[in-house]
Amino acid sequence: MLEKIMELLEGKKYQQLKALLNSMEPVDIAALLDEVPPEKLLLLFRILSKENAADTFVEMDSVSQEVLIRSFKDAELEAVLDELFLDDTIDIIEEMPANVVKRILRHSDSETRKKINELLNYPKDSAGSIMTIEYVDLKKTMTVSEAIDRIRKTGVDKETIYTCYVTETNRKLIGLVSVKTLLLSPNDALLEDIMETNIIFSHTHDDKEDVANKINKYGFLAIPIVDNEGRLVGIVTVDDAIDVIQDETTEDIEKMAAIVPSDKPYLKTSTLDLFKKRIPWLLLLMISATFTGKIITGFENALQACVALTAFIPMLMDTGGNAGGQSSVTIIRGLSINEIEMGDILRILWKELRVAVICGLTLAAANFCKMMLVDRSSIAQSGSNVVLVCAVVSITLFVAVIIAKLVGCTLPIAAKRIGFDPAVMASPFITTIVDACALLAYFNIAKIVLKI
Amino acid sequence: MLEKIMELLEGKKYQQLKALLNSMEPVDIAALLDEVPPEKLLLLFRILSKENAADTFVEMDSVSQEVLIRSFKDAELEAVLDELFLDDTIDIIEEMPANVVKRILRHSDSETRKKINELLNYPKDSAGSIMTIEYVDLKKTMTVSEAIDRIRKTGVDKETIYTCYVTETNRKLIGLVSVKTLLLSPNDALLEDIMETNIIFSHTHDDKEDVANKINKYGFLAIPIVDNEGRLVGIVTVDDAIDVIQDETTEDIEKMAAIVPSDKPYLKTSTLDLFKKRIPWLLLLMISATFTGKIITGFENALQACVALTAFIPMLMDTGGNAGGQSSVTIIRGLSINEIEMGDILRILWKELRVAVICGLTLAAANFCKMMLVDRSSIAQSGSNVVLVCAVVSITLFVAVIIAKLVGCTLPIAAKRIGFDPAVMASPFITTIVDACALLAYFNIAKIVLKI
Repeated sequence: MLEKIMELLEGKKYQQLKALLNSMEPVDIAALLDEVPPEKLLLLFRILSKENAADTFVEMDSVSQEVLIRSFKDAELEAVLDELFLDDTIDIIEEMPANVVKRILRHSDSETRKKINELLNYPKDSAGSIMTIEYVDLKKTMTVSEAIDRIRKTGVDKETIYTCYVTETNRKLIGLVSVKTLLLSPNDALLEDIMETNIIFSHTHDDKEDVANKINKYGFLAIPIVDNEGRLVGIVTVDDAIDVIQDETTEDIEKMAAIVPSDKPYLKTSTLDLFKKRIPWLLLLMISATFTGKIITGFENALQACVALTAFIPMLMDTGGNAGGQSSVTIIRGLSINEIEMGDILRILWKELRVAVICGLTLAAANFCKMMLVDRSSIAQSGSNVVLVCAVVSITLFVAVIIAKLVGCTLPIAAKRIGFDPAVMASPFITTIVDACALLAYFNIAKIVLKI
Repeated sequence: MLEKIMELLEGKKYQQLKALLNSMEPVDIAALLDEVPPEKLLLLFRILSKENAADTFVEMDSVSQEVLIRSFKDAELEAVLDELFLDDTIDIIEEMPANVVKRILRHSDSETRKKINELLNYPKDSAGSIMTIEYVDLKKTMTVSEAIDRIRKTGVDKETIYTCYVTETNRKLIGLVSVKTLLLSPNDALLEDIMETNIIFSHTHDDKEDVANKINKYGFLAIPIVDNEGRLVGIVTVDDAIDVIQDETTEDIEKMAAIVPSDKPYLKTSTLDLFKKRIPWLLLLMISATFTGKIITGFENALQACVALTAFIPMLMDTGGNAGGQSSVTIIRGLSINEIEMGDILRILWKELRVAVICGLTLAAANFCKMMLVDRSSIAQSGSNVVLVCAVVSITLFVAVIIAKLVGCTLPIAAKRIGFDPAVMASPFITTIVDACALLAYFNIAKIVLKI
């Protein structure tokens, strides 16, 4: 597709190009334009129909947006800005360098500029920072047909018309009415009689993830956002909620994999930025592995007395890490989709303990059989008692799995309780702790059983 | 809240109970009822207003739903079934044992029963299995006001009225029109003049995850589902899309943590089921760690010649595992949110190689310094050359990080290419492979540098 477009562009077949581009959805046009060399971008963008231009602009990545804003003539910039919903303008501004932001603000009218500045003041990740202020507001004294008239008059500039908000003169939110209710009610019914007064809303300072979860939980198309005085100041729509959910999940997954989260797509992230996202945890976890090293050094004599033991260190560490990772990841995900609450900790511990015992016994038994079959000769060669070594490894495996599962389910909940993000307590971190515990158990059990 | 309700129930204060329950949202009522002892469930459910009852029933977990269906009188069951959207009925049926399904089918009218059987025939995880067949269909010859009249007449039973579908007599989908467009157009405009004919749709057999991603990508409230002949057979709405996205993400996360995915919430899953979800991968990964054991056994002489080397095995394995996990998880997530495509493999390899080199150098340098400071005495004690041992460990670290990152980014893409789920290629699996590679590198480098 990109090739075809570049071909048409080289051949100056602008009419064909125009027909082709404008038959596509803005999201798809944006994805194409993001791949176009910067010097061709403005030319292609100018070919878009007026209605597609703003929608496409919103969907482009920030690198392309910056190129465009820098190359737009003043009138073009104003035209695009004029078509944008304010929440999209805010998203764009947040990604731009200061001089581009200045240019955007200079070309917004003073009313919009004031609103932009207000919205920019909400904390990052708050409901206020993602809400849109373009919604339909109605009065309770209106009839259904008056309400529909108002929607017809003002609806074209609103992000959603399907949920309308009934406010009093002081902007206090007193009811909701959906277009479905309006259409299914008699024309002369009063809004105050048909509106939903049992309103579920969020506050401007609520975490955007909570807002998204609320929209999902109740199956809303939009949720009203109110300030501390209960005045309606904006709405968050379901499409933005999905984006929040996806972004927060990506962030959780990155944290679970010991990556410092960022919101740039992978292919657009520079090598240096990827390095910066990954090195902190790698360094920290590497340094903390010093303890495991110290434990091994401390038991060097035991290892020299029975060299066969060394061969099973990786298996014990990995299995412990995997068992702990399973538990921690299950709990972290449960917490983040609100399936699990902090009050459930005792039920969780009890459940994990039972799972750990069955898993531990199964693994220990399987390992014992495997060692007796596969590792028998190499253990015997090194001069140790085969059955005893197999027993030491299997008992350690059992103990390691129990420790791993209990640590794995406790740490995320503990992290949440003290206000940390549970996602950090996933496999890499758990592995480091479980390694140390498993090795301590290993050598102590070996000392007792093998009398070394 | 639960206590208060049980108190009112014990005190037989049904009026208060009714007022309290019916002031709540169905989702919240359902969450409460899920916690109620089974023998009280029917009593409480009967207190709900008719309009809340069906909505609450849909949101309850399958255990409570089964209790209710078994205890409903025939008329009650019919009343609830009558209020459900067909996609919700399908969801419920899929969770129920055979005799409960029979009871549901026996109490549906023959028309509904036929449709249920049709829907049940779609493959699990297909668009057909999650679609709803209650949508508004219009004809292109209608005027705006005729269309609005039809919505008013038929809309109350539809899952969404906001996107309406224009079909020909053979049910072929030829256009879409939103209620927003209807409201903003003149009353006498013809649908064929205002409808959107550039339709984005899914097929009944498309993967439900692709359908959800499409809804998200284009910001739709609903997407039409057509059969092989292009006939409209149903729609998938945005609220169902969010559920699909959340479920699929949970599944991905579970696979990444070496858990066999299931769709039951953690606290509702029995110990035995948790065990069954976790043990397969634990066993498989444990057995595959045999190779790492064999590698260590194979180099036992080298280890005995320089016992200090053993202490750094855990650190090398963990850091390799973490570095590989970072890459694989980044790629897996990128693939699943369509940020990365298979064609990007060369760009990814090149990027990961550069990141790996910088990460590897940083870690190796940090490790060299740390070992010279912290481990110097214990290495010297064991009679080895301190600088050489530090060099061996640091060089291995560098090599291990490079291998880990390249394996980590290649395997998920390779898995996708041969039709496997990339999510399985996450940390636990990568760790096992990287462990073996790291140890092989370690001992070979040690042999060369330390001449043992």
